[in-house]
This record gives sequence, structure tokens and C-alpha cells, in this order.
Amino acid sequence: MIKTSFHFEILHASKKSRARVGKIHTPHGIIDTPNFVAVGTNGTIKSLDNTILEQIGLQLMFCNTYHLLLQPGTDIIHEAGGLHSFIKRKLPIITDSGGFQVFSLAYGSVASELKSKGTKKTDGSVLKITEEGVLFRSYRDGAKFLLTAEKSIEAQKKLGADIIIPFDELPPYHMDMKALEKSLERTHRWEERSLNAHLQNPQNQAMYAVIHGGVSNDLRGKSCEFLTALPFDGFAIGGSIGKNKQEMVDLLEFTMPRLPFEKPNHLLGIGDVESIEKCVPLGIDTFDSSYPTKAARHGLLLTKTGAIKIEKQENARNFQPIEKDCECPTCQTHSLAYLHHLYKAKELTAMSLASLHNLYYMVKLMESYRQQILDDRI
Amino acid sequence: MIKTSFHFEILHASKKSRARVGKIHTPHGIIDTPNFVAVGTNGTIKSLDNTILEQIGLQLMFCNTYHLLLQPGTDIIHEAGGLHSFIKRKLPIITDSGGFQVFSLAYGSVASELKSKGTKKTDGSVLKITEEGVLFRSYRDGAKFLLTAEKSIEAQKKLGADIIIPFDELPPYHMDMKALEKSLERTHRWEERSLNAHLQNPQNQAMYAVIHGGVSNDLRGKSCEFLTALPFDGFAIGGSIGKNKQEMVDLLEFTMPRLPFEKPNHLLGIGDVESIEKCVPLGIDTFDSSYPTKAARHGLLLTKTGAIKIEKQENARNFQPIEKDCECPTCQTHSLAYLHHLYKAKELTAMSLASLHNLYYMVKLMESYRQQILDDRI
Repeated sequence: MIKTSFHFEILHASKKSRARVGKIHTPHGIIDTPNFVAVGTNGTIKSLDNTILEQIGLQLMFCNTYHLLLQPGTDIIHEAGGLHSFIKRKLPIITDSGGFQVFSLAYGSVASELKSKGTKKTDGSVLKITEEGVLFRSYRDGAKFLLTAEKSIEAQKKLGADIIIPFDELPPYHMDMKALEKSLERTHRWEERSLNAHLQNPQNQAMYAVIHGGVSNDLRGKSCEFLTALPFDGFAIGGSIGKNKQEMVDLLEFTMPRLPFEKPNHLLGIGDVESIEKCVPLGIDTFDSSYPTKAARHGLLLTKTGAIKIEKQENARNFQPIEKDCECPTCQTHSLAYLHHLYKAKELTAMSLASLHNLYYMVKLMESYRQQILDDRI
Repeated sequence: MIKTSFHFEILHASKKSRARVGKIHTPHGIIDTPNFVAVGTNGTIKSLDNTILEQIGLQLMFCNTYHLLLQPGTDIIHEAGGLHSFIKRKLPIITDSGGFQVFSLAYGSVASELKSKGTKKTDGSVLKITEEGVLFRSYRDGAKFLLTAEKSIEAQKKLGADIIIPFDELPPYHMDMKALEKSLERTHRWEERSLNAHLQNPQNQAMYAVIHGGVSNDLRGKSCEFLTALPFDGFAIGGSIGKNKQEMVDLLEFTMPRLPFEKPNHLLGIGDVESIEKCVPLGIDTFDSSYPTKAARHGLLLTKTGAIKIEKQENARNFQPIEKDCECPTCQTHSLAYLHHLYKAKELTAMSLASLHNLYYMVKLMESYRQQILDDRI
């Protein structure tokens, strides 16, 4: 079987913004952009059989190398014939480097960091950061593990996703400029090492660089300059990108024009409805986020007129579907009243049905963004 | 729409035992017997969308009136057009009276009672048992609730299941003969009141009596005598039927010949593989049990050669399905290694995939029993 090589095709660039409609061609099929990317950390969407994603047209799935490295281990997945075969996914997959997870599990999220005003101690899972890589303790069994650029790429080669990510450091939000600059330079060296390791055995995979530099325009600019000079297939925006939406928008307005227009751009870990609305016009092509499925597990159902809190009493007698014109399997069958009941009764089924609806909502939302761009309305 | 009235058709009676192959005709379709009945306490199979049961051919679903009465309430379900409409099930449903749940939640299971040697105090949820009924506290909000024969039937009329159960008392396993006999007589009066309430408005529903009498042949005999004289549509075996399989078999060997051969028999709350094997030859037609789904949630996968403990390390690299010739959606797609991984990673998806397999296993198991009876091998 001859596999399609990765390439990005721009079908239409908006006359009003940097937004564009495109197709990312991968060995496992096409990703229409802009698009939402479902997060399946452990090789499944939480509470759903991942094979259902194909039915609802979810084209790209994000899996976490860090988690898969520790459980079941990349060797087992490699023996199974790679991640697609192991989880029985026919459509494209993207994996990260593992770096983000090591650091974020140690430092906590930007939000929790902001709450503690940077005084929060790490949980000790990151033992040492050296030029070589990061030594950490497994969250599963406490075993020590040294993750390096080369090891991350080796793991991602075994997983065999369509798109892979170079090893990087996620500096905490509260880091002084001097330290942040040192971290950025080291991240650049790690990314270059990752790219070199990748190019020794491309395996028909594509690699997106990760632009770092925290909330400093100066450092973001340097990161764009350094990484766009290397033969990456696309660019992801990583690291702390601000403590609120405005900081994020300001940062992306500065950063995006410094990336080559003809390559795809991914925003790492951000994919809530409001952020997507703000970032599509800035030229972001793909967004990965666990937001729609996490919201679903907490009883929040996405609709065009805002989120429905399913446990509210007003839904107890509403025998209509979540959205009347929604064609997701949940809305095609079940009512708000039934979903309300399942949440009240703490049935796991509630989470599956709601997750399916929310993911389908994202699929349709992104479809509408593509149409709006084609119409030059964005 | 003209609805089929309930009737039981015996296609073949074994020459070797009381086992028979039949068809229970109901307003929502046929139940081939002997058969397994999936338990969907709150109107869903745990971790699955109940509409998938139709795909795997699971013909009868058991829902608990007690739970549905407290959440969402039978009025809401009635407004939705009844339980079939509320949960979007096209195939037959059976509901119980609520009595069993009130008492079993108060007394605990026979197993836990045996462990405590009958000294276990009730949790106080049953406040008072009178001729009228049972006063209890809701496990949900602590509100007092008086459940009577008439109220149970009113609730089951609102739910509108194909088969309903009269209100009965579940006496604890450790009850002296005198008290047990008094309980039995009261249960008989409650069941007769239930039948009368039902017959005032049959609504095309069928009602199965519940044979009581604990582990006393004498009382079981009396129960058969009393209840078979009334125009019930079928008979269920309820109450404590012994502390082990042999006691159960002895009791059923005594009881079953005292029930009219031409009416269907149900064994309440028992449906593990071993019990089914022992009880089919005794003439039990339907078995409800949460065993296959509960086992699935604990990582036990049913196969023809015994149960597989999915978390065992030997499954980590087994890229075969649970059973090679199994045609369930899980086996058609996924491997033991993937399921092992999902359990290790504590993914909810593991429970859904395993529950689906185990239920399908029961469907096929019962299919094979029917064939064996047709062949006079049982």
C-alpha cells in the first residue's frame, strides 16, 4: 500500500484575516482545517469506544506519549503494529513528546500556578533537568525515568502517529526572563535534536515544531526565527500563552505572522469554544483539547445557544433532544429528561452520551468555521 | 396499532428434564426462552447506551421500580409516554414491585447476612411494616415513603413494562419459621391485592406472581398452592433460595413441579453462568442478573473456557480478541491487550467494551441452551 505523504493544501485564504481553509493530507487520511482535535490520552476517548469517532467525522485524535510510555509501554504498542493498530483507529493520530506532561504534572497548570502566585512547590516528580533531558519519577510506580529528545522520538516512532512533536521544556508561567531565555535556548537544542532523530527514520511521519517563549514577544519572536529555519512540517504553539484570553490573542497576533503561511499551525491544549472563535482568524488550523469531553463528564452539554447544565431541574421534564437539529447519535435517540435522569442517578452512560454529543458539536462547529472562511466572513 | 397480548408458547419440552424452549409473546416483541435478562436498574445498562442491546439481540431488560420511583419519579416517565419511550427501548421490559429493593437495601444481601450470621442491624431505611405496606426512608433524600401493593402497581402502570411483579416482602434469610410463615401469608395478601389492582386496568401488561417461603419446602409448597390458584400470567421465584447452589437446586426441584407447566417461570436476581446451567433443566425460562455487567466492570470477561481476568499480565501482549469466534462489537474490533491496557489505565471505556462482550456472551449462551433442549440433550 502506498501511503500518502504529509502535505498541507490551502484551499482558501480569507480576505479579512489570517484564517484559511485547508486540508492536511496524512498517511491515514485528510484533516479538514480549521479543525478540532479530540484528546485520547491513553488511546481512548474517555467513556467512548474511540472507533465511534470515525462515525461522527472526528478526523484527528491526540494521544499522549508520556502516558502511553508508562502504560502499556511503547514496545507493546509497537508489537501490536503501532498505535493505529493497537487502538484500531483508521484516521490520523498526533502524539506529543511527553515533555509537556512531565513538566505540567510537576508544575501544575497555569491556572493553579496563578492561584498559588508561583509559590507552589513541585510535587517532586521532576528530579533533574540537564542538557541531556529530564529525569522524573513515574506517576504510576515511582520508577525513575530519563526522557530525552532521542528517547521521545524513539517512543513516537514506535507509536507511529501521523504527526509527532519534538521534545521540549514547559517552563512554569512564573519564571524570570533570564531563566526563561535559557530554557528557550535549551528547548531549541532539544527540538533540533528531535528533528535530527526523526529525519534519520522519517517513517512517513510529519513533525511540528513547538514555538516557545512564554508571554514574551521578544522570546516568541526568537523562537519563530530559530524553528522556522529548520525543516519542520508544521508549527505548534506551546508553553504558557498568557493568563487570560486577551494575553493569548495579543501573543498570537504577534507570533502567527512570524510563521510561514504555507505550513499548518496547531494550538496545543486549547480548544474551548471561545478560544477557537478568537484564534481561527489568527491562522490556527488545529486545536486539541479535552474540554468537550471533560465538560460532558461534568454534565455540561454544548449547544449553539450556550452550554446546558444537564442537572438543572428545568431539564427533568424536557423530552426534547439536547438540540433539535443535532444529528449526533445521542440527540437522534435520547431526550434531555433522560440525560438529566442518568446524571442524577450517577450512571456512567450519561458521560458517554454527553461526550458523544459534545464531540459531534465540535465537529459541526469547525465545519461552520470552514464555511465562514470560504465565504470570507472571518 | 394493535398490540400483541401476552402469551407463552412452548415449542419443545425436553424428554430428559423440565427444560423447555418457548416464546414469550409481549406487546414489544418476543422473548425466546430460556433466556437471560439484562438488569438496567435506572433505565440503562451501566456504562452502555441501552439501545445497543437491540443490536446484540438482548430481548428482555429488567428495570427497578424502587429506583425509578425515587429518581426521576414515575410521573415524569409517564409524561414521557412510559418507560419504553423514556429510555427509547423498543423491546420488552420487566419491572419489579419495589418491595425487594426496599427490603434488600435494608437487610443487605443473603451473602452479607450470612457473613454477619444474621446479627447485622438494618440501616434503618425500613421504618415500619404493616398490613398496609412498608414505610421506608428514601436512600436519595431521606424522605419517608409508604409503599403498598396498590402504590407499587400504580407505579408499574405508569412505567408500562410488558411484565410486572406484585408487591411482596423479602424476609431476611435468618428468620424463624413462625415469623417466616406470617410474612408469607402477608405477602400472599399483598400479591392478591396487587393482582386485583392490576386487573382493574390491565393495560396489556402481564403479571408474574412471586413464589416465597424461604428455604422451607413446606412454605414454598403453600406459596405455590395459593398463588397458582390466582390468574397470574407467570411465576417468579423470589425470596431467599438458599445459601449455596445445592440448596437452590433442592428448593427448585421441590418447587418447580408445583407450578403450572404451561406458564413461564422467572428466577429473580440470579443469572450467573453456573446457576443457569443448574436451573434450565428445572424449568426456569428467564433469569435476570447484574452479574455479567458487574463482572465486566471488575475486569472479568466471560468465555466458553471460563472467565478471563483482564488485568492479568498475560493479557498485556495478547493481540487476539477475547474470543476468536465471538461476533460481539468488542471482539470484532479490539484485542485483549488493548482491553488490558484500558483497565490498567482505569479508563471507563474498558467497562463499556467488557459489558458489551459479557452481555453478548449471555445471549449466545442462552441460544446454545435452547438448541440443546431442542436436541433433547438437556
